[in-house]
Amino acid sequence: MMRGKGIVNRLAAIAAALLVAGPLHAEDGYALWLRHAPPEGEGRSRLARLGGLIVANNPDHPTVALAMRELDDGLAQLRGGAAAADGAATGIRFDCHDPAVARGGAFRVMADKASLRIAAGEPVGCLYAAYAILRELGQGVDPAKLALDEAPAMPLRMLNHWDNPDGHVERGYSGRSIFDWWHLPEKLGPRMIDYARANASLGINAVVVNNVNARAFMLEPRYIAKLARLADAWRPYGIRVFLSARFSAPKDIGGLATADPLDPQVQAWWRAKADEIYAAIPDFGGFLVKANSEGQPGPQDYGRTHADGANMLAAALGMRGTVIWRAFVYQAEDTTDRTMQAYAEFQPLDGQFADNVIVQIKNGPLDFQPREPFHPLFGAMPKTRLMLETQITREYLGQATGIAYLAPLWKEVLDADTGRGGPKPKTVAQIVSPVGMAGVANTGSDRNWTGTHFDQANWYAFGRLAWNPSLTSEDIAREWTAQTFTRDTETVRRIAAMMLGSRDLVAQYTAPLGLAHLMGTGHHYGPSPWVCDLERPDWNPCYYHRADKDGIGFDRTAKGSGALAQYAPSIAAQWADAATIDEKYLLWFHRVRWDHRIKGGDTLWERLAAEYAWAEIGLRGRIQSWEGLRPHIDAERHAAIAADMARELKDARWWRDASMAYWQSVNGLPLPAGARPIPESLEAYRARTFPEAPGQ
Amino acid sequence: MMRGKGIVNRLAAIAAALLVAGPLHAEDGYALWLRHAPPEGEGRSRLARLGGLIVANNPDHPTVALAMRELDDGLAQLRGGAAAADGAATGIRFDCHDPAVARGGAFRVMADKASLRIAAGEPVGCLYAAYAILRELGQGVDPAKLALDEAPAMPLRMLNHWDNPDGHVERGYSGRSIFDWWHLPEKLGPRMIDYARANASLGINAVVVNNVNARAFMLEPRYIAKLARLADAWRPYGIRVFLSARFSAPKDIGGLATADPLDPQVQAWWRAKADEIYAAIPDFGGFLVKANSEGQPGPQDYGRTHADGANMLAAALGMRGTVIWRAFVYQAEDTTDRTMQAYAEFQPLDGQFADNVIVQIKNGPLDFQPREPFHPLFGAMPKTRLMLETQITREYLGQATGIAYLAPLWKEVLDADTGRGGPKPKTVAQIVSPVGMAGVANTGSDRNWTGTHFDQANWYAFGRLAWNPSLTSEDIAREWTAQTFTRDTETVRRIAAMMLGSRDLVAQYTAPLGLAHLMGTGHHYGPSPWVCDLERPDWNPCYYHRADKDGIGFDRTAKGSGALAQYAPSIAAQWADAATIDEKYLLWFHRVRWDHRIKGGDTLWERLAAEYAWAEIGLRGRIQSWEGLRPHIDAERHAAIAADMARELKDARWWRDASMAYWQSVNGLPLPAGARPIPESLEAYRARTFPEAPGQ
Repeated sequence: MMRGKGIVNRLAAIAAALLVAGPLHAEDGYALWLRHAPPEGEGRSRLARLGGLIVANNPDHPTVALAMRELDDGLAQLRGGAAAADGAATGIRFDCHDPAVARGGAFRVMADKASLRIAAGEPVGCLYAAYAILRELGQGVDPAKLALDEAPAMPLRMLNHWDNPDGHVERGYSGRSIFDWWHLPEKLGPRMIDYARANASLGINAVVVNNVNARAFMLEPRYIAKLARLADAWRPYGIRVFLSARFSAPKDIGGLATADPLDPQVQAWWRAKADEIYAAIPDFGGFLVKANSEGQPGPQDYGRTHADGANMLAAALGMRGTVIWRAFVYQAEDTTDRTMQAYAEFQPLDGQFADNVIVQIKNGPLDFQPREPFHPLFGAMPKTRLMLETQITREYLGQATGIAYLAPLWKEVLDADTGRGGPKPKTVAQIVSPVGMAGVANTGSDRNWTGTHFDQANWYAFGRLAWNPSLTSEDIAREWTAQTFTRDTETVRRIAAMMLGSRDLVAQYTAPLGLAHLMGTGHHYGPSPWVCDLERPDWNPCYYHRADKDGIGFDRTAKGSGALAQYAPSIAAQWADAATIDEKYLLWFHRVRWDHRIKGGDTLWERLAAEYAWAEIGLRGRIQSWEGLRPHIDAERHAAIAADMARELKDARWWRDASMAYWQSVNGLPLPAGARPIPESLEAYRARTFPEAPGQ
Repeated sequence: MMRGKGIVNRLAAIAAALLVAGPLHAEDGYALWLRHAPPEGEGRSRLARLGGLIVANNPDHPTVALAMRELDDGLAQLRGGAAAADGAATGIRFDCHDPAVARGGAFRVMADKASLRIAAGEPVGCLYAAYAILRELGQGVDPAKLALDEAPAMPLRMLNHWDNPDGHVERGYSGRSIFDWWHLPEKLGPRMIDYARANASLGINAVVVNNVNARAFMLEPRYIAKLARLADAWRPYGIRVFLSARFSAPKDIGGLATADPLDPQVQAWWRAKADEIYAAIPDFGGFLVKANSEGQPGPQDYGRTHADGANMLAAALGMRGTVIWRAFVYQAEDTTDRTMQAYAEFQPLDGQFADNVIVQIKNGPLDFQPREPFHPLFGAMPKTRLMLETQITREYLGQATGIAYLAPLWKEVLDADTGRGGPKPKTVAQIVSPVGMAGVANTGSDRNWTGTHFDQANWYAFGRLAWNPSLTSEDIAREWTAQTFTRDTETVRRIAAMMLGSRDLVAQYTAPLGLAHLMGTGHHYGPSPWVCDLERPDWNPCYYHRADKDGIGFDRTAKGSGALAQYAPSIAAQWADAATIDEKYLLWFHRVRWDHRIKGGDTLWERLAAEYAWAEIGLRGRIQSWEGLRPHIDAERHAAIAADMARELKDARWWRDASMAYWQSVNGLPLPAGARPIPESLEAYRARTFPEAPGQ
């Protein structure tokens, strides 16, 4: 027989071993930021007393019960599996119907040495509070000093899934769809719960489950049954389901001859369809619609406006739900600067949309490029409910290769002053806060959910910014890192620094100085600035860079397309002069000569070459820095991320070499002094094909 | 302070809690049969002494090092994480170059109270021994009584992946491909190691990494680099990589005008390609080729034979590797009974294939149906090396829905007496044992690898049968269950019983009495016996069932297609008479009248109706039985499997209802007395469409 102490040590070792475990149980990333790894030292002993007895005034409410269980489980994990110390344990009390707290997810947390009290206006606030407490403790906050008073900035915090019912994810780079439609409603995979939990931990409260390029059959009864099973499973997590609806559904599956929104039969069909959905899902959120865009059907097919189409669907939903209508439109026959078309179509409709219609606008006027100025519709439709659409999946920023932390991109837009909105101009965040924010999801069947470990941070950052757009990118990076990797302060600082600069590096080697849309056709990966023969002008990289022997860039000033005039005068003025514009937007708004001298004295050509070189230096430095973190990161994730970084460096060199070879073929200039030679010919770069590139 | 005992109990509870754990750490199936869950009671105490010191005579050999680590880790897990008892620990000794043991993976294990000795002819035998020891211990064998003396029955134990380079898996139902070609060679995911480990634990030693419907670009240098990274990672696990090669590659990527196997330039191109591959992968296994089948290019495009094509590639590989040439062929213009065409094309070529060519033959003459007689080529090509091709993925047996344990299907073929092979007729197992066995893999990106938990058993059973085809289906089911779920004897017995009957149930409701190929077009899921309008006759279910008002079935006797004559006379004699044939093959070989009385006295029509009804009763009984096992199975997997069973019952009823409605429409007969009414009309069943069905 062993002595008690020996057994204690041995069992403690088991517990530790099971947490890190063998090759099949390594840190695979599945737990996301909800790892709840126990702190060391003082932090651990402070936690030992917390969580003895958890009570609530209505513990049987599903969401309250969930909040209690999540907090209990999370605290147990933070304590390393140990039970809270008996006797002196801190009591925890939930009051989830406190009239002093707002509804809609707001909560307060008050602690002292003897108790932890959580108050919310409705149960979902208690759930958010539970996750917020764990987030704070996960970062090392003293439990006795917890003091939170939060309310979500935006009512709709929504993921848009571009997931097709056959499991393919359009622009998805992390495996197949997480939705197993084929086996619903009989089988609801555990991942559907883990997904809801991850979303709820961030305050995400709405999910559009299918691609905006929608299939009509998802409105059929067999799919409503599947959707109802999901809605039931997610309801306790405070998540409402929405569907992308195909505008031509009355024809596709309804047997009607038309989908004209002014046709009474069409209106009746949608009304009956909405009734059918609400009978199965009483809290169904509504429809997201991509209409008359990239081949999708819409009201313009019948000579009607976007407002006609949206309002017809809104009437079918009535007060029960919302129509979210996308402003991402551009026409094949329209020769206007593509970045101007959404404004031209939608701005005149301001004031014509029904109360339960939201117009959803991408962050920039083109299409989720590594950098764009904010969309000029923000501020230009004061009588319309506007929602911001961001892309979490990195369609144009390396996909699931390398690292691009997107919070800085989204913050640029949220913090942008529109120059409009009355006497006191409003930021984009102020404009969309009464409505909401959507993110195109980056989730997939990969074990770590998002393809790379760092892409989890983008899901996290989206949720946090939708909850509170005034958080800084650095705050979010630090809290994510502490929960995901380690609480070690210096390591957190260094990882956050890598994250903060990562998107600028991607922009620097794929779209320097305000260039855009230079990527490969179809798959949108890697460089193809030479492409100029696609059917539609605005599908071609050459349409955007306009490089020739004299210069490069898209003139969007009054002398050019005039797109600048879609912005408020005070904003347009900042960008109107190539000599004073922030260089990150230089070639977005201006066409300049290769020998144009920019700030610092370099010619544009020299500076362009330098941008690529700086990106390469930055990536090499990051690789070194990551190598230095090896002792602080588990081996599995350290190796995976090191491989991601090596691949990104290879790709950045490819972008630089191929792009520079092409620019040289256009401008005939020699490489600037000191520039690295280009190893292959332009023809060789042009000849590279990738028929198997993911995500097409 | 708590007393020691209290802490012990608490820590024991932690350890237990971490094993079942919270929502993100439940039994998700990722560990497969390598869970190494600690036994209870006596079994545990017996293990306590095992594994103190592990030594080997060449511990630095990568495979020996792996064997030592796997055994050490596995034993630690079986001991529940505890270190082996000090002092009295059993020593473990590996000798991995024992000349008394055969090479090629054979091993011996000898144990007594003081020691455990492992001997092998080469290191991979030691690795197999390590896994075999863990398998035995996992089933509760007393470590002091371990005594193994094993050698693989077949040299090639191979998985064929129908995985495309873009991540789509043809006939894959468990997510996307596990191969991340896009990020290779820089990034090798940890799943690639876990996959190799799972294979090695079964003795699988060869992997064809890409679909037989191959893309030529996978032979380009950038893919050879990717493949080399995989080969390097898998080499310690004893796994050789093979590639599916597109026969037209010299034209597709080589710039030649022809792929004629007798053209010297073509021969030189393949020789240079082989040299290029061997420079990167010295132990490259060779090529798998699907030629002149279902639209794939092949030697017949140039008037050459399969032997001409295979031998040309074999010459390019030389003694370094093997060409595996598939016999799955049928021609658009050939109106012969499709099941006869492979024999007609290949049998005359017997003796013409080079020594390093293998002809790979599917288990049956049609295409992986729920039940087929064995392929008549087995035994009919005595001068050719023949390999058995089986399908682990359930293309025609419910895909990743419900349960179908396939060992009984494979055993039927392996144990089949071909009636040929000289004075003492040989079984299929005896014919293929000198060569090998291939299985079309069912792995994917799903967390449990195979879509359903029970589909793991098919991967497992394939590997075990390739190692030793004389194992029984029940032995394999029991050992898999004990390692995967629980060692509880009664539970193992009941689960094994469910598994053993599962494939017969699927055959009973999808293909009763020897029918075949009645599934939906394209996706191969669900019933479509009515389909009769596809371009090629042999793509139509009606081609196979031939039902009309008089009768049903395919006459393959001398009065019909004559396919029976492709079998040895002694075998053909067993199947020649509709009155005496085993009913499971009745309608495969015979066309019979609806009022034909079969054994037991029922008419065919009554019996057909009864088959469907019995299947439904069987499925309901299984659901009840599974419900009774709830206390013995972890909640997550119990729920998932219960959902699988519910879905299968729903599908079985659909198969029955739709099929019976169709048969009635053909024969005009009323439902037999007591039969359940058919809830919908035939038109309603025919109108069902599933544009999103997986795996097309």
